[in-house]
Amino acid sequence: MKKSIGILGGMGPLATADLFRKIVLLTGAACDNDHIRIYIDDNASIPDRTAAILHGGPDPLPAMTDSLRKLEACGADCLIMPCNTAHYFLPHLQALTAIPFLSMLEATARACREKFPGKAAAVLATQGTLSAGLYQDALSGEQVPFLVPGGAEQEALMRVIYGGVKAGRPPESYRADMEMVLDRLAAQGADYFILGCTELPLAASLLGLSVPTVDPTSELARAAIRFCGYPVNPAAIL
Amino acid sequence: MKKSIGILGGMGPLATADLFRKIVLLTGAACDNDHIRIYIDDNASIPDRTAAILHGGPDPLPAMTDSLRKLEACGADCLIMPCNTAHYFLPHLQALTAIPFLSMLEATARACREKFPGKAAAVLATQGTLSAGLYQDALSGEQVPFLVPGGAEQEALMRVIYGGVKAGRPPESYRADMEMVLDRLAAQGADYFILGCTELPLAASLLGLSVPTVDPTSELARAAIRFCGYPVNPAAIL
Repeated sequence: MKKSIGILGGMGPLATADLFRKIVLLTGAACDNDHIRIYIDDNASIPDRTAAILHGGPDPLPAMTDSLRKLEACGADCLIMPCNTAHYFLPHLQALTAIPFLSMLEATARACREKFPGKAAAVLATQGTLSAGLYQDALSGEQVPFLVPGGAEQEALMRVIYGGVKAGRPPESYRADMEMVLDRLAAQGADYFILGCTELPLAASLLGLSVPTVDPTSELARAAIRFCGYPVNPAAIL
Repeated sequence: MKKSIGILGGMGPLATADLFRKIVLLTGAACDNDHIRIYIDDNASIPDRTAAILHGGPDPLPAMTDSLRKLEACGADCLIMPCNTAHYFLPHLQALTAIPFLSMLEATARACREKFPGKAAAVLATQGTLSAGLYQDALSGEQVPFLVPGGAEQEALMRVIYGGVKAGRPPESYRADMEMVLDRLAAQGADYFILGCTELPLAASLLGLSVPTVDPTSELARAAIRFCGYPVNPAAIL
């Protein structure tokens, strides 16, 4: 019996649609019925994760728990969520359910080790993700060398994420910020970039970036497909 | 209290991801929390609809009903499904639930009347959709003139849908079939094309088609956004 996926979504909505699309495209399938059953709660009412971690904003756990219960009731065999920052709450969520909850951070750290052995990653993520040390811990666990953006670069990245992608603004409005961040981190020794906020693979695609990257959304999709016992399509065009 | 959407999906999976993405992009929203809550059951186990209508294939209603019950349990305030052919079963599904189940066919017929008044539509759809007269009835209800493909064109269209998009094959493998269909229908008097199978907006986008079209996936997305009491973003880039 093959397994199904539950996506605790809405963080953000476009990133949730991106994860869903990537799972479909990355599944080796020749017709509708070869695909994985996927349950999604695109829960737009979940309070902002970075605001909760950094500024004592509203606790997102009650709304996340509501989604978790709905996905359990649907019958999901594993759970994933397309928000790196939300992984701050992953241990709490895992303690609330018997369903395996796969970590986007761990899937990404493994992919970094396999794809860029010995090379230095630059972690592009929200201030909430970085302040909580989420990627630092996951990458250290896989012995992946990394650097993180400094103050000006991090402020520019937050403008890309919040003022650009989440606000639905056109990519040209955040191109300069994004390119500044990449240039400065490359000058500091970054060999490749972890697009460690789920808005960033969207930004990278819209901007047509050509720098070497690891996309946590795609890595989480691959990990979930494998967990469910389905083949990953190595030729998928994302 | 704003309303939520339930998507009875999996028909097919990529079309479901496309509908989800279009709802997100078409919603007028400045941050995650401005979006609509969306529940999706991407149910890949639903038997093929055209096979059931034309050839006595397995009945898709039991699997569709299973999804319907799950979306009801989540608390969806309206239901939609991203499969034109599946609308053959819409009256059965509507009789099973008290939740409003919006019709993609009616949303499309209204859009045709408003966008191309008095012009002739060519209905591009599966053999199941056409044989059941689904679009013919909906378009007649809105006094929209239309024509349907003949035998050779319809066979080519089925190759695009099943041998191309649903099979995950590259767009160049079905470009010749698609262009032949459009050319012949234009020669027969079609002023614009209804992309009346949810795989066809995907094909049109991948092929970069520039003919005038009505996209039922986008029209259904707009209808659902309005039903839920949210603003439609007129400047959305799909």
